[in-house]
Amino acid sequence: MVIKRKYPEHISMEEAWLILRSSFGGISKNYISEVSLSDSLGLILASDIKAKRNVPHYAASAVDGYAVNASSTAGASYATPALIPPGCYVWVNTGSAIPSWSNSVLMVEDSSFDKDTLLAFKSLTPSANVRPLGEDVMAEQIIAREGEAVSPALISLFLCAAVEKIPVIRKPRTIFIPTGDEVVSQEIWLAEKKPKSGTVAESNSLFVKATFKLWGFDVDISPIIPDDKDILKQKLDEAVQEYDVVLVGAGSAKGRRDHTTEAFENSGEVLFRWIRMRPGRPAMAAKINGKPVICLPGFPMSTAVVLWSLVYPLIKSVASGKDFPYDTLLKEALVCKDTWNTKLLVQHSSLAGIRDWLRVKIARVKETTYSWVLTSGASVLWALAEADGVSCLPESALECEKGSDVAVWITREFDIEKRILFQGSDDPAIQHLITPIRRRGGDIVFRTVGSMGGLAALSRDECHVAAAHLLDETDGTYNDMFIEQFACGREWERILVFYRMQGIIVQSGNPNNIRSFEDICNGDYVFANRQPGAGTRVLFDYYLKKNGKSPSDIKGYEQQCTTHMEAANRVYTGLADATLGIKSAADALGLDFIPVAEEPYELVIPAEHMEHPAVAALLDSLKDKEWRQAVERMGGYRWPN
Amino acid sequence: MVIKRKYPEHISMEEAWLILRSSFGGISKNYISEVSLSDSLGLILASDIKAKRNVPHYAASAVDGYAVNASSTAGASYATPALIPPGCYVWVNTGSAIPSWSNSVLMVEDSSFDKDTLLAFKSLTPSANVRPLGEDVMAEQIIAREGEAVSPALISLFLCAAVEKIPVIRKPRTIFIPTGDEVVSQEIWLAEKKPKSGTVAESNSLFVKATFKLWGFDVDISPIIPDDKDILKQKLDEAVQEYDVVLVGAGSAKGRRDHTTEAFENSGEVLFRWIRMRPGRPAMAAKINGKPVICLPGFPMSTAVVLWSLVYPLIKSVASGKDFPYDTLLKEALVCKDTWNTKLLVQHSSLAGIRDWLRVKIARVKETTYSWVLTSGASVLWALAEADGVSCLPESALECEKGSDVAVWITREFDIEKRILFQGSDDPAIQHLITPIRRRGGDIVFRTVGSMGGLAALSRDECHVAAAHLLDETDGTYNDMFIEQFACGREWERILVFYRMQGIIVQSGNPNNIRSFEDICNGDYVFANRQPGAGTRVLFDYYLKKNGKSPSDIKGYEQQCTTHMEAANRVYTGLADATLGIKSAADALGLDFIPVAEEPYELVIPAEHMEHPAVAALLDSLKDKEWRQAVERMGGYRWPN
Repeated sequence: MVIKRKYPEHISMEEAWLILRSSFGGISKNYISEVSLSDSLGLILASDIKAKRNVPHYAASAVDGYAVNASSTAGASYATPALIPPGCYVWVNTGSAIPSWSNSVLMVEDSSFDKDTLLAFKSLTPSANVRPLGEDVMAEQIIAREGEAVSPALISLFLCAAVEKIPVIRKPRTIFIPTGDEVVSQEIWLAEKKPKSGTVAESNSLFVKATFKLWGFDVDISPIIPDDKDILKQKLDEAVQEYDVVLVGAGSAKGRRDHTTEAFENSGEVLFRWIRMRPGRPAMAAKINGKPVICLPGFPMSTAVVLWSLVYPLIKSVASGKDFPYDTLLKEALVCKDTWNTKLLVQHSSLAGIRDWLRVKIARVKETTYSWVLTSGASVLWALAEADGVSCLPESALECEKGSDVAVWITREFDIEKRILFQGSDDPAIQHLITPIRRRGGDIVFRTVGSMGGLAALSRDECHVAAAHLLDETDGTYNDMFIEQFACGREWERILVFYRMQGIIVQSGNPNNIRSFEDICNGDYVFANRQPGAGTRVLFDYYLKKNGKSPSDIKGYEQQCTTHMEAANRVYTGLADATLGIKSAADALGLDFIPVAEEPYELVIPAEHMEHPAVAALLDSLKDKEWRQAVERMGGYRWPN
Repeated sequence: MVIKRKYPEHISMEEAWLILRSSFGGISKNYISEVSLSDSLGLILASDIKAKRNVPHYAASAVDGYAVNASSTAGASYATPALIPPGCYVWVNTGSAIPSWSNSVLMVEDSSFDKDTLLAFKSLTPSANVRPLGEDVMAEQIIAREGEAVSPALISLFLCAAVEKIPVIRKPRTIFIPTGDEVVSQEIWLAEKKPKSGTVAESNSLFVKATFKLWGFDVDISPIIPDDKDILKQKLDEAVQEYDVVLVGAGSAKGRRDHTTEAFENSGEVLFRWIRMRPGRPAMAAKINGKPVICLPGFPMSTAVVLWSLVYPLIKSVASGKDFPYDTLLKEALVCKDTWNTKLLVQHSSLAGIRDWLRVKIARVKETTYSWVLTSGASVLWALAEADGVSCLPESALECEKGSDVAVWITREFDIEKRILFQGSDDPAIQHLITPIRRRGGDIVFRTVGSMGGLAALSRDECHVAAAHLLDETDGTYNDMFIEQFACGREWERILVFYRMQGIIVQSGNPNNIRSFEDICNGDYVFANRQPGAGTRVLFDYYLKKNGKSPSDIKGYEQQCTTHMEAANRVYTGLADATLGIKSAADALGLDFIPVAEEPYELVIPAEHMEHPAVAALLDSLKDKEWRQAVERMGGYRWPN
């Protein structure tokens, strides 16, 4: 059943902003207010400011020396000093007032004494070395203009000119109201040892608060409102009395959304619902009591996107009384340090007619700056925390091929010249190298693409370092044949990091009593498999063949996990009975581990990258004592002799 | 008498910074501290952070639909739905926990009902539409690294992962101690109707506080310390116990400086004194109780320069535990938005071997971006408040010719494309046009160079608009001959703004009973003259000639003031007995005014600039009602018919 609404739905991000701007933009008289000097920093002046006092308010000496009447120095020189009797000169420090009978100051360097007679070696003009009254600014002079932002220098000048109350466009008073029965307050969440299933931390208010702080704005946070439409309506009606802007954090479930819509409709006029962007689609805005009320969908990334695309532009506009290009507002909202043009390292599919907000990582190999999307849903915070930047694909973008041009708003500080890109086999111990490498002045980013994927990327100049543990089933050797094949005659260095133990990972206590590959092949078990090209997958396929089995004999063979931890997690949560992986993954989740093979784990680095500062840092980090101890604590690793 | 000190003196700015860096740089263990989530924004992590909880901590539905066991949907399609009996499915919202007997969620869109039997139209794999436990991050996973700044996303992630206390490099605790007997606290300064001569507002603490706030750091402000070396020493010794960084605001007088030096020497080790830069030369630093103590010279601009060049680099370094290029630190200290290459509009002389900090204004005429220095001493705040940017000339710079390349750090937000440069005759009423022009979307900057200077600038394409009131003594006409001469056949538009009354300005009550030019020429009076090329100067010279006098007959003829207000101020403060100027200048200072001539005040605009948006705004502003009323209130103006 499709209900026709009286307000626009499924509109574009730009349309949503234009609706907000036309509903609430421009200078509002409500926002003009007087603040004290110390509260005025960064605010926009609501009118011209006139000095109320001359600065300085007296004629002051500009040097250390003697205040005199200029006429008493007439004709003076080093050869023929003027003689000034006592009573006709007086010592003044820099900044001191000069007596009313004097009109100039003789610098101490240009004077001497003969008993108590002052010798002047220089002839002065009236006002020489004197800061006249009002030299800085004069009373009634306009010293700052409507529309200017109050700077530290202006604040000081206002004080000197005795301007006490500053007419400004004050910041909008904003409140964020988190809602939802499943949402648990920060205090309770941290106090609980094991939160109940189905609950979620009220983390969005921290995100909203911190983001407002970065923007230089304030926001109040309301206690959590339960899923009760009457309570929500009451809270909304109160909030629009006290606040200028009201933000409602609503859950993303369909039921919740309808519930919020109803409250918005009952309290005021809904302006729009649903925006054609991903994430952030269920955003909604209303005008209640003449105030903007915006619904932020509950998932963290959705909240972020609506803050950037609608809330900041709105708040900035009302706080400045000015219009800015939307692009400028978006960049400011993201606290974007720069915009970079990058090439997509991996293709990305976007939906037709929907803006796509991407969190991307960036690395430069040789001359090419690559970006790749941290794939994850709106619910995943880690990708946002880890991103180097954000890209907002236009609605027209569909299939972005590998190598497509993508503009990225940079949101993290990093030195791209000191960063290397690692592609290859997943290993938790290797990922612990980030901090040792950074301490050595380098930086590294990881893409887990399997051993084969890493070598292939290296052959295409798409990374600086690969890592592999690929079994050659013809002779039982590792990596040799594969590296030779991908290197195609180029000079690639190989560094053996460690040997690591692969094994069968099963549930704690091994309830199915799985002892070997034969058990897996013969039993009715679900297996969590790894992606094609992963060294662990190559190993598994080798064992399958050795046991005379085909993939179709294995339940779950099509379940492709890209990391050891992801595969082990499937076993842990009961989605699979077994997987193949390294000991540290089993240990991290308290799973049982049946060792099957020790394999060498090698880094592969083209000779041309060996001089890169981060490669040097990486190689040196392999000897790092703290790191080696951490690896030994993880278990399942053996250092080469 | 030259005393040889045991510490470096008269060093370069870079040397001063290197001394501070080597004395206090690098990560100090003192700064590592644990803070709560809400206090962590922007701080640098002191160690890697591991998740303490899986996020999510349970297997959650990723959609709205029915939790089922995947096997119950085997082979389902729209043609052949799977039938799932009651008890084998349960409704789940997005984010809800799925029951332990289920392993996947059937989207509501893919389902229907036959009575209470669920019809599934899609075959599901185990874990379909389920966010597995730890999908976002897993317990024990490193979720942020040492050295990273805490972002809003990280704060939220920390909460979700139950990380409560964040190990960070805390911000340095800093105190600013203003000193000086002449310094008056903010409260007293504002409360006083007329402050005593020789006193000055304690404005630097407001500047320091606001600048720290812009930087994202905190600073405490001490009450003012009198000029007493024992009290100062005691205050210093206390401050270095409680604070990490101590800033002392010292006067610029020689006596005061020696006094501070003595306190520094007695309490610890002086690191350097005097820096080869202007302003900021009397800066000094010491190590007391192992802490950095920096002396900021008292003049506002000197304080600013030392904050930028030494204090920010020091604080940023200890707060991040990292090294940054000095240039980067300086730009951050100035909160510089951009760096522009400009051409000097007017030559600037710098001293040999001394870094010169310039406050500059900027405008672009045709393709050339010009900058010019707002000439003013270290004591003048207005120039800093008014500047568009700051340029720090290298020590090697000496005579910077007109047209020299100067790099400017932009510190103000403005749209250069909408800005016009006005050069010409000074008039207070014209300067009131800034706000009306800005309200119309334009912007204007003024250079007061006299009528002749303005026409000359226009002929060299160095401004968009000139203004003139030049008397042709051969026939008594105004401007015609001069404009013809400078335009050299180019098409220049003329806009008559108003007629204004010129007159003799004398002290209040006219104590010398000056009634006419003859009186000035014949009496023994000091005259405040205007600069050559000013229309008012041309007028004065005409009257001199008419009275048969030569410049040498007039006392003060060589006193060149560049504005009406400056000249009137000389009369007001008794430095001159009379000047020639407009009525509004006399009125502003309560001086007497004897009218002598009404003159036309004209704008001159080349035809090619008539389409500039700010020219359009200027011309429209001349009709602005508010502005016209203000001009009429000023007095001495008459609108043309």
